[in-house]
Amino acid sequence: MDKRLLARLALSEVDSLARAVLELHGFSREQALAVARTMVCGQRDECASHGVYRLLVCIATLKAGKVDPRAEPQVHDHAPGVVRVDAAGGFSQLAFDRGVPLLRRKAVDNGVAALVINRCVHFSALWVEIETLTDLGLVTLACNPSHAWVAPAGGRGPVFGTNPIAFGWPRPGKDPFVFDMATSAIARGDIELHRRAGKPVPLGWGVSADGEPTTSAEAVLQGAMLTFGGHKGSALAAMIELLAGPLIGDLTSAQSLAHDAGAGASPFHGELILAFDPRRFLGERYEHYLHSAETLFDSIEQQGARLPSARRYEARRRSLAQGVEINDELLDELNALLHR
Amino acid sequence: MDKRLLARLALSEVDSLARAVLELHGFSREQALAVARTMVCGQRDECASHGVYRLLVCIATLKAGKVDPRAEPQVHDHAPGVVRVDAAGGFSQLAFDRGVPLLRRKAVDNGVAALVINRCVHFSALWVEIETLTDLGLVTLACNPSHAWVAPAGGRGPVFGTNPIAFGWPRPGKDPFVFDMATSAIARGDIELHRRAGKPVPLGWGVSADGEPTTSAEAVLQGAMLTFGGHKGSALAAMIELLAGPLIGDLTSAQSLAHDAGAGASPFHGELILAFDPRRFLGERYEHYLHSAETLFDSIEQQGARLPSARRYEARRRSLAQGVEINDELLDELNALLHR
Repeated sequence: MDKRLLARLALSEVDSLARAVLELHGFSREQALAVARTMVCGQRDECASHGVYRLLVCIATLKAGKVDPRAEPQVHDHAPGVVRVDAAGGFSQLAFDRGVPLLRRKAVDNGVAALVINRCVHFSALWVEIETLTDLGLVTLACNPSHAWVAPAGGRGPVFGTNPIAFGWPRPGKDPFVFDMATSAIARGDIELHRRAGKPVPLGWGVSADGEPTTSAEAVLQGAMLTFGGHKGSALAAMIELLAGPLIGDLTSAQSLAHDAGAGASPFHGELILAFDPRRFLGERYEHYLHSAETLFDSIEQQGARLPSARRYEARRRSLAQGVEINDELLDELNALLHR
Repeated sequence: MDKRLLARLALSEVDSLARAVLELHGFSREQALAVARTMVCGQRDECASHGVYRLLVCIATLKAGKVDPRAEPQVHDHAPGVVRVDAAGGFSQLAFDRGVPLLRRKAVDNGVAALVINRCVHFSALWVEIETLTDLGLVTLACNPSHAWVAPAGGRGPVFGTNPIAFGWPRPGKDPFVFDMATSAIARGDIELHRRAGKPVPLGWGVSADGEPTTSAEAVLQGAMLTFGGHKGSALAAMIELLAGPLIGDLTSAQSLAHDAGAGASPFHGELILAFDPRRFLGERYEHYLHSAETLFDSIEQQGARLPSARRYEARRRSLAQGVEINDELLDELNALLHR
């Protein structure tokens, strides 16, 4: 029986709590606002790992000296199709927010444009950023490396991060079509939860340090995680390393882990966001082809299959109506951060 | 024992054979040149399904009235970041070739640019196109829909095509890093081969018409194929439908199959190619970060894992030295096309 008590908070209270903790620990007002927004979205959509729980990780990263809490991101108009934002060692969120207006203008002008975020500390849920851009009517693709924990197909040593890739398609009057997925078979946190519970993990989540398939969570954490989808997932993970690492002049997952030097902080690297303006691609045919996309979505849902973010949107509606629940143990830890 | 005889041909002979068949059947010289090049590359790299075998499919598609053999692709400077080529009902290859110079210029100017191919009949191996662009120093991502044969995760009805996605990264002085993969669990041709041989297919390749997992190749061909990687592969397949369908003003896989109307011809739709100029992204830091990518590749190969195209490059070296083998049965069929 789960004896934890649950506190119910309105989303505005979640926001206030997150901002209060961050500002008390030295984050600038703007940094705190941007980071808190990700946490409110995570808590609202019942992605607990990106909710206020992340405050603990943020403060640990700060105490390890691995994030600048008062960083001022600098926006560079790098090329006609490329905005570059130097996050200057802060979290990625404010850098993203600062880059959006110029990214939008470039996508509208050119059809396609890239937002490069450099030198950011990263824990953001990509879908939060994707939705910011689909809300502006842009089709969006985003990816980033992380810490090297994942072996390539046929290998045994960690090379890739959990390397998420996320995509969004705007649906006027409806929740956008959005997916946001790690290219690892599973999140590292899930393996950690199995280890704590003393439970075996399914085959396919990882290999031991000598490259053998294993169901031991401990062995996977000491060895390497695997990608989803075998050699195809591994190829995608490599693509993400290249696009959101060397192409944009930033670190690979292996370099991010080396930079961490055992501190256990959030990864430090770059992020690539591509935005396509469907109005620029389609002109007068915009309505026709957006309808064609709706026909595709209908043909998926009418056979009982779900669109990727359906569960998040259901959670969102619940949270907006009723607030969110946070267990007492976590709330105690957060209160401790407020009365240090 | 396999009693088929094998003829050994030089690559120049493969090219001559393919062009002769195509021109005899009414393809314009330029169309034949472009299509033959794909087949030479396929045969050379021992991707038999994209070698001269495809001549049979090309001529069948022609006889079904589903391709214009003398189409003149039209290049449009659609937007500062977008080249659009109307293939005008011809095969995709010549349209691609015609679009490359402007795509390159736009990528060099803007950092990132898109090549949209519309109204093409498609059977090209994407890696051939990817390598054309990596040879120009461009990082490249390409995808296209096909015919609707693949069910979404959790569904039973075909919605997606086999929807390939391909990526390339130039490696100065070395074969580029390239992958080209279907988002279906397996190629449709492999299921057909199992059906002909009366062999069961592995679970996970497809479902029967009532949505049940099955090992019957016939049931999968009557039902639906599945994507690789479960719901993650399914999400990618949907992304490809959207990016290389509605976004570029062209057909989805379901619309392509409807257009075919049972003719059994190659799919008719569009293709999206994104090109990134790493020199524009990196400036003076180009050498440094290309070296960083090489470190990534080394860390994969040094643990005994292979890069995605390793087998193709080995086949290529063999073929360039010794020519290629074509079995007598296929050669007879091709000769029959030359003496109709």
